[in-house]
Amino acid sequence: MTPPTAPGTAPPRRVGIDVGGTKAQAVVIDPSGEVIDTAQRPTPRGDRSLDSLIDVVIALADEVGHEGSVGVGVPGLVTRTGVLRAAPNLDGVADFTVSELLSDRLGSAVYVDNDATCATVAEWLLGAGVGTNHLMLVTLGTGIGGGVVAGGMLQRGANGFAGEFGHMVIDPSGPLCPCGRRGCWERYASGSGLAMLAREAATGHRLHDVVRHAGGDPQAVRGEHVQAAAREGDQEAIAVIDDFARWVALGLANLTNALDPELFVLGGGLAVGADLYLEPIRRWFAELLYQPALRPIPRIEFARFGPLAGAVGAALLPELRG
Amino acid sequence: MTPPTAPGTAPPRRVGIDVGGTKAQAVVIDPSGEVIDTAQRPTPRGDRSLDSLIDVVIALADEVGHEGSVGVGVPGLVTRTGVLRAAPNLDGVADFTVSELLSDRLGSAVYVDNDATCATVAEWLLGAGVGTNHLMLVTLGTGIGGGVVAGGMLQRGANGFAGEFGHMVIDPSGPLCPCGRRGCWERYASGSGLAMLAREAATGHRLHDVVRHAGGDPQAVRGEHVQAAAREGDQEAIAVIDDFARWVALGLANLTNALDPELFVLGGGLAVGADLYLEPIRRWFAELLYQPALRPIPRIEFARFGPLAGAVGAALLPELRG
Repeated sequence: MTPPTAPGTAPPRRVGIDVGGTKAQAVVIDPSGEVIDTAQRPTPRGDRSLDSLIDVVIALADEVGHEGSVGVGVPGLVTRTGVLRAAPNLDGVADFTVSELLSDRLGSAVYVDNDATCATVAEWLLGAGVGTNHLMLVTLGTGIGGGVVAGGMLQRGANGFAGEFGHMVIDPSGPLCPCGRRGCWERYASGSGLAMLAREAATGHRLHDVVRHAGGDPQAVRGEHVQAAAREGDQEAIAVIDDFARWVALGLANLTNALDPELFVLGGGLAVGADLYLEPIRRWFAELLYQPALRPIPRIEFARFGPLAGAVGAALLPELRG
Repeated sequence: MTPPTAPGTAPPRRVGIDVGGTKAQAVVIDPSGEVIDTAQRPTPRGDRSLDSLIDVVIALADEVGHEGSVGVGVPGLVTRTGVLRAAPNLDGVADFTVSELLSDRLGSAVYVDNDATCATVAEWLLGAGVGTNHLMLVTLGTGIGGGVVAGGMLQRGANGFAGEFGHMVIDPSGPLCPCGRRGCWERYASGSGLAMLAREAATGHRLHDVVRHAGGDPQAVRGEHVQAAAREGDQEAIAVIDDFARWVALGLANLTNALDPELFVLGGGLAVGADLYLEPIRRWFAELLYQPALRPIPRIEFARFGPLAGAVGAALLPELRG
């Protein structure tokens, strides 16, 4: 059982687990917010049931040693009471109160939220957004997720679904999205979007260096091949990254019009290539922003916690709710 | 001088003035929120200086009789400290602390905010949004403005510029916007947008009834001509309104992804034709919403206070800030 802690006192070791599409990441943070231990396991590839997900979380929690409540970040729509309504990478998940199922197995209180919401909490309280009252986190991965802090509060929305930025339509005649609509932001500004922009350019008999990195097949081009060629100075690859950056900036400008944040924190898998993207994203953002002369231009930074942001934020969930 | 009121007690008569592009509207509301007096004056057409704006506000405040602090809504970007940074319908306005200028002339405290923010306050505290913690007001007028309530708080953003929904780009290859970009939401989903959609259809030799309402010239077609023909049952006019409703709904779906509100309140000049628009907007919204099966579909209502919303909300500003 968990030893009681005084109100307002952070427990000595806080455990957070972020369940992603390919792996589950656990962290332990100390009261100052330093990551003092990590562990990870692959998310089962064959069996993508809720049971297998729960087994992975239990195994990781046992491995790092949980003393008090545990925070868990999951992909998909999570209601304000911790019910997982839908998870794109898990089979048959709908309407499970994940927090209760896990709590029964672990014998501790378990707090569950959307993975991007967790990353937002991490960057706001301990990362790139410390001290800000108005920030938006945008995760650029396979798709686009995110989270909102406004007026000094984490904003989950009426149902807990705030921050689903990826399905903002920015081009109604654009490519089809698996969600059924056309031209969602994540068709352009995610990892899949970068690959699409590159394949389009490659199919037009450009991007020879990028195609070489992809083994000679234009249809096999992925984001990392564009990055590799851009790092070698290939001008066509750099042009694709510039085009990608413009799409990222367009969505950030749209979000600025809605909520006027002082800071965007960019996270997700593409944060790995931050040095390639940040300058062109900032340049396009200043160009696409409404009334840039009349306001301080919101800052754009990459997530401090990188791939650990979701797990760190999950570890902080109990305090935020407490 | 103003007689002091006990903390938390609303003064018996609260005065709000909304300065629009063509007219300035004053209201007096009693402690229960009922509108007990109104007055209006045209905004000077020749002289659009800040001085003339201030003269109109003073004249209206004197006409309705102000006892305590006065709230004023103005078009344009207003900072959190009441500085008017830019107003599209006023000449040479930049960086004036309107509240101080007015306060000196009136001998009372004056609270100034963006007109759409004022309308948001009115609908949230006394109108269509009473009891909700997550709502967005969207004003469909010549352009599109709006305001945000999230987590039970009015959200002004870092600079006070939240709610500038009209310049969300939803079609990067769309028509040019005076802001310099292409395909802003207000190019399609505002009063000007409805007129543009109708003129496009009319130029293609359709919309005979609408063109007749416009005196026979396709280029003279305005929103009210489409409305008039639609009310007579003209199917082509109804189709234009359906197209317009789809653009409105597309933007509302985008905003839902970002903030997950429980309610949209639609205000502005187009609220006059609410009975024509509301059904198709709701139908398209349910179609364009992300994951509609997994959430209660946010409600869409028209503003209760209609054209008085800005002035009523302005009258409430002192309480909100106090």
